[in-house]
Amino acid sequence: MGDDEPGRAANGRAPTIRDVARAAGVSVGTASKALNGRGQLRTETRARVRAEAERLRFRPNDLIRSMQRGRTYTVGLLTGDREGRFSLPLVMGVEDALGEAEILVFFCNTRGDPERERREMESLLAKQVDGLIVMGWRSNLRPPIAVPDARVPVVYAYSRVADPAALCLLPDQAHGARLATERLLAAGRRRLAHITGPTDYEAVWERWEAMAAVLAEHGLGLPEERVLCGVWEEGWGYAATGTLLDRDPAVDGVFCGSDTIARGVLDALRDRGRRVPEDVAVVGFDNWEILARFARPPLTTIDMNLHDLGREAARRLLAMVGGAREAGVVLLPCRLVARASCGVAGDETVH
Amino acid sequence: MGDDEPGRAANGRAPTIRDVARAAGVSVGTASKALNGRGQLRTETRARVRAEAERLRFRPNDLIRSMQRGRTYTVGLLTGDREGRFSLPLVMGVEDALGEAEILVFFCNTRGDPERERREMESLLAKQVDGLIVMGWRSNLRPPIAVPDARVPVVYAYSRVADPAALCLLPDQAHGARLATERLLAAGRRRLAHITGPTDYEAVWERWEAMAAVLAEHGLGLPEERVLCGVWEEGWGYAATGTLLDRDPAVDGVFCGSDTIARGVLDALRDRGRRVPEDVAVVGFDNWEILARFARPPLTTIDMNLHDLGREAARRLLAMVGGAREAGVVLLPCRLVARASCGVAGDETVH
Repeated sequence: MGDDEPGRAANGRAPTIRDVARAAGVSVGTASKALNGRGQLRTETRARVRAEAERLRFRPNDLIRSMQRGRTYTVGLLTGDREGRFSLPLVMGVEDALGEAEILVFFCNTRGDPERERREMESLLAKQVDGLIVMGWRSNLRPPIAVPDARVPVVYAYSRVADPAALCLLPDQAHGARLATERLLAAGRRRLAHITGPTDYEAVWERWEAMAAVLAEHGLGLPEERVLCGVWEEGWGYAATGTLLDRDPAVDGVFCGSDTIARGVLDALRDRGRRVPEDVAVVGFDNWEILARFARPPLTTIDMNLHDLGREAARRLLAMVGGAREAGVVLLPCRLVARASCGVAGDETVH
Repeated sequence: MGDDEPGRAANGRAPTIRDVARAAGVSVGTASKALNGRGQLRTETRARVRAEAERLRFRPNDLIRSMQRGRTYTVGLLTGDREGRFSLPLVMGVEDALGEAEILVFFCNTRGDPERERREMESLLAKQVDGLIVMGWRSNLRPPIAVPDARVPVVYAYSRVADPAALCLLPDQAHGARLATERLLAAGRRRLAHITGPTDYEAVWERWEAMAAVLAEHGLGLPEERVLCGVWEEGWGYAATGTLLDRDPAVDGVFCGSDTIARGVLDALRDRGRRVPEDVAVVGFDNWEILARFARPPLTTIDMNLHDLGREAARRLLAMVGGAREAGVVLLPCRLVARASCGVAGDETVH
């Protein structure tokens, strides 16, 4: 007794509860009680079993526990974001919330391929995951994931499906646009423009409408010639700024649909001799730190709080695993990160 | 028989092999043989069992299979990269290689916290993962992960430990620096400079040495005044370029330690009236597309092939799970992505 190599039973297997029982000279049932802290046992017996378990480096097998409990304490996370720019903060938020509940996350990147998504989902279900989180990389409608087992709850995070029984968590794009527009107005700007991405993104429409609504509340307009929709690229921001200034040289504030676009806008304004924020104030979207913090000047931008969205998705999934029923589209707030590109008197800008 | 709700047994549980057997009117052993394609069965019986399994949406339970086979077909992936810039292509490479082998990946981001790493590793081992991949976000030496079970193989990817029994896969930083320097020389540049990150990164030293070695082979020097080590930030690239041009206005080529630094270098050169690549050619490092492709001009840069490194790490881990023993530091090649910032006659630059 007590002379097996730690971490291995005599035959080289990982030690089991049987090996612990044998080493401690007790039955399997007694060893199990001792390790679980259940049942009536002499203190000495309990201590001996625990000492042998530690010496043998016995690790309780989660697979067995999982089958006993009918839960695996695993969650599958499916994302279609090739670049990871949006999914990574989400994943970290999910992981933070699930880690507190001692749940591990299977990560599957489907590259936006429906066939791959179906295969990965089947693999996740075969592993008996307790639930699924399905992430998008834009808020457009996507087809619901066809989970053949209705008992496996699904939360859509940063992605939206038409199924009214589904739970979808999204950043509130209109709220973000409202924050950006109000900040430009607070900086004394009255002749605003919007340079953004392609119109096949719902977010493009939602933000445009919200911006126009805020301006209307202040008795200001947003004529179409001052809204330029293109692609999510720096080069587009640069080119669009040239077009904008040709159309209307008096523009004094630009709300950009992404930080990449904003970088191009800032470069073009500088090349045209416009000072930022003195002549033109600029606000971006995404708070992609590496672009926003080192822009010249540093960029005021909207943060979609994707880490928090990931945490919230995980929390709601856990509630559903526990039996709660949740459905509908939940919009979570954005926040504005103030930096020098949109100077407001008395503003605590971050440099 | 045959009237249970699909996906559920009569009592609301997930259907088991027992339910399939009952529905098909056969024994559990016969149902199992029919589904596994083993044993001697009448074609009709086999077909009936399979039809019932399909109708009930019976999914074989991987947990049971795992315990039968002594493998779970899962791998744990531990990363300390908060930002995901380096870990994400690695993760996708790992996932591609493991997906082919129908293995799923548990993703754990330790945020570089050793205590969190230990906890996450314990959770992964409790889930009986077949192996671990440990990722870093710089190639500096890190402490080996203390896996208490010697039968669980570990591969270090983009991270290095001193243990000679460990297998560490790293990008060949010296190879990357060699490619960059040779490209600048091929573009006719003779007075080169290096603007890079902090000297507590091994990669900074490895690249500096390799650059100096290539120049020495061509009878050229790299005086210390033309090597500027700072931080991995755009602002540093901008500031360092000013210092460099004050020290030596005749510099005609700059190798930058990252694409962020290179963006600052390009801006500073433009502000100083230097044309790129005509007056000064510039090469970056990382091939971070969003920065490199939309730089003005688009940036020639070194790609560390992290996706391939992830694939290779996964393949070697699978070999080790299968019993192979691998150890040592393996350096994998980089590649140069040619764009306009380092014009070479006849070069197929990517715009």
